[in-house]
Amino acid sequence: MKAARYYDNKDIRIEEVDAPTVVPGTVGIDVAWCGICGTDLHEYLEGPLFIPPHNHPHPISGESAPLTLGHEMSGVVYEVGEGVEGLAVGDHVVVEPYIISDDVDTGADSKDYHLSKDMNFIGLGGGGGGLGEKIVVKARWAHKIDKKVPLDQAALIEPLTVGAHAVERSDVKEGDLAIIGGAGPIGLLTAAVLKAKGVTVVMSELSPLRREKALETGVADYAFDPRETDVVAEVRKLSRDGKGADVAFEATSVQVVLDTLMDAVRPTGVIVVISIWSKRSDFDMHKLVMKEIDLRGTIAYVNNHPETIKMVEEGKVNLEPFITGKIGLDGLVDEGFDTLINRNETAVKILVSPSGAGL
Amino acid sequence: MKAARYYDNKDIRIEEVDAPTVVPGTVGIDVAWCGICGTDLHEYLEGPLFIPPHNHPHPISGESAPLTLGHEMSGVVYEVGEGVEGLAVGDHVVVEPYIISDDVDTGADSKDYHLSKDMNFIGLGGGGGGLGEKIVVKARWAHKIDKKVPLDQAALIEPLTVGAHAVERSDVKEGDLAIIGGAGPIGLLTAAVLKAKGVTVVMSELSPLRREKALETGVADYAFDPRETDVVAEVRKLSRDGKGADVAFEATSVQVVLDTLMDAVRPTGVIVVISIWSKRSDFDMHKLVMKEIDLRGTIAYVNNHPETIKMVEEGKVNLEPFITGKIGLDGLVDEGFDTLINRNETAVKILVSPSGAGL
Ligand SMILES: NC(=O)c1ccc[n+]([C@@H]2O[C@H](COP(=O)([O-])OP(=O)(O)OC[C@H]3O[C@@H](n4cnc5c(N)ncnc54)[C@H](O)[C@@H]3O)[C@@H](O)[C@H]2O)c1
Ligand SMILES: NC(=O)c1ccc[n+]([C@@H]2O[C@H](COP(=O)([O-])OP(=O)(O)OC[C@H]3O[C@@H](n4cnc5c(N)ncnc54)[C@H](O)[C@@H]3O)[C@@H](O)[C@H]2O)c1
Repeated sequence: MKAARYYDNKDIRIEEVDAPTVVPGTVGIDVAWCGICGTDLHEYLEGPLFIPPHNHPHPISGESAPLTLGHEMSGVVYEVGEGVEGLAVGDHVVVEPYIISDDVDTGADSKDYHLSKDMNFIGLGGGGGGLGEKIVVKARWAHKIDKKVPLDQAALIEPLTVGAHAVERSDVKEGDLAIIGGAGPIGLLTAAVLKAKGVTVVMSELSPLRREKALETGVADYAFDPRETDVVAEVRKLSRDGKGADVAFEATSVQVVLDTLMDAVRPTGVIVVISIWSKRSDFDMHKLVMKEIDLRGTIAYVNNHPETIKMVEEGKVNLEPFITGKIGLDGLVDEGFDTLINRNETAVKILVSPSGAGL
Repeated sequence: MKAARYYDNKDIRIEEVDAPTVVPGTVGIDVAWCGICGTDLHEYLEGPLFIPPHNHPHPISGESAPLTLGHEMSGVVYEVGEGVEGLAVGDHVVVEPYIISDDVDTGADSKDYHLSKDMNFIGLGGGGGGLGEKIVVKARWAHKIDKKVPLDQAALIEPLTVGAHAVERSDVKEGDLAIIGGAGPIGLLTAAVLKAKGVTVVMSELSPLRREKALETGVADYAFDPRETDVVAEVRKLSRDGKGADVAFEATSVQVVLDTLMDAVRPTGVIVVISIWSKRSDFDMHKLVMKEIDLRGTIAYVNNHPETIKMVEEGKVNLEPFITGKIGLDGLVDEGFDTLINRNETAVKILVSPSGAGL
């Protein structure tokens, strides 16, 4: 089968590899679609970061580069391993792409398996990847999804679930006012979850194309250019008592955006930081204390897939408008990565069909 | 009557002033004891900060320097204004020293009156102060306390309540493990509240005298010198699963202490910042995200006095060992401030008897 293999930064190869084998407790999946994520770009430009470098096997997967890429995938079950219940050949599934030690409790009540030692992601730390024609994953990580949800849209459930966990972390309530800094894929999908929960959403974003996308998809009620609009003043005006937003989401890793959010939230407000900061922040601790702000980190998801899948199945989130490109495996670097690296604001999510069948 | 009046930094004068008048809705209090707080020292050394400078009247109190100082007070009611219920002449009281606009809801259910616009403190922003022989306050801010609690100890209820609100902000539970950075008055009294709630307390503190105080009062189970002990390793060893503390309290405004706490808390841990930072922090945002840490500011108190008063009345907190000095108004600067500025670690709380009656 064909797969996109990460050797090192700037060195991704489309190769013929052996198909994986289904063993007890796992399912085999024909990958339908796999999204390209910002993390994949980071690995391509500056990696390996999450990816275990050549000859440095990951402690849980035992694998190291070269490795198959891709962690935002949907597909169809083609084989079910011994002992697996609740999944059958032909089922549509999405993958919660975790590599987690067997001695960690990953039950439905766990609130922290995603923070366990040496946690990594399928498609980065080993275990195959969605940028290959087939993948075998532990049944625990395959989530069934209703066939009425198109498989291309289903591939966006992974980043949507990042948004859902961020929203969970915020303790936002229906009727609240939220501000999001950054209308990239993560900001937009976080907005989609907020809208589905009845929250008023304000976005701050530099790119006119992305502001347009936020408004035309209906995930944002307001989208401002922070160079032209006093975002803090607007948010206060929109708030029920002039004091500011109830919650904020930081999805840019840009210092000035964080500072704006510190001013835009009300006293006792919550700011959830979703973005990955490669340097330390010049943080206004005095303001955190005097306004009693809560600053909360969020990473990936933990038992959030069932909720997001339900949201999509019930039509509360429409993922279709966020798909801005579809390509085959051969176009991964030249078309996909190139667009996202050089013309990021023209795209939201580019999907790859590893077999080419979806094209 | 005699009062300590703040004119400007390094200019505090003990003067004869008119006694305040009891009006409807207020009570007159003979001040028994008033503690000296770190904030008073800041005002003395670098102020005016909270204090409205001369000819710049505070928007709520209408007052400006010179003003009477002191906000950590206990005393005896000598007159009750018209319309006041639940307080009688002879009652022992402590003051919740707020200057808050009349249009703010300060009811028992409010969770944010302390964050209202232009909030200031009695003894800083006007309204008289505990470093005067008598004070008149709105009945809302006078809390009755059982006579079995000595009035000197009662003067420590104000900083204890700062600790109680910080603890409330942390969502700590009985049986949890907490680490506190800094064993000054605020760190120690926060520890006292934690102990009363059945929490295991680790303190990190440079001063041997303060570590000793933390241990001999029993508010800390462990007190480490961070220059000699790997505090993070010790905290992990003490935690139930080796992952670190459930909650942390930052009471130093020192960068390296904050960094230690970021490492010492478990994933999903909570860090409450109590200290006042005069500069921005060089903050490890990546760690906040990857460990899903909650960083929470806390300022003063909001409806926390009833709970702390009960704690003290029931003997769950013994405030006696934290009183390390008693002086008269004339010794305020030369004895009191001088000790706290130049030999801070030899003292915890120095109390002033404005009338000299307690000495
Ligand atoms: N926590 C997690 O689990 C998780 C998961 C996936 C991605 N991420 C991170 O989330 C972040 C966002 O991801 P993305 O794919 O949406 O990135 P992106 O780069 O596509 O989007 C960031 C957006 O921020 C906007 N922006 C930049 N400066 C701005 C400013 N001053 N004001 C307003 N907007 C500004 C950009 O125009 C861009 O649209 C990244 O840091 C990514 O690594 C985190
Ligand atoms: N948030 C609030 O409502 C509130 C109320 C009162 C005071 N405060 C603030 O709380 C903070 C603490 O007040 P305090 O009166 O206890 O101050 P303090 O200066 O007496 O105590 C600070 C302690 O930190 C210790 N320390 C310094 N560097 C250290 C290090 N590297 N490792 C370990 N310990 C170290 C010092 O030795 C000292 O004992 C101050 O910033 C004060 O302004 C906040």
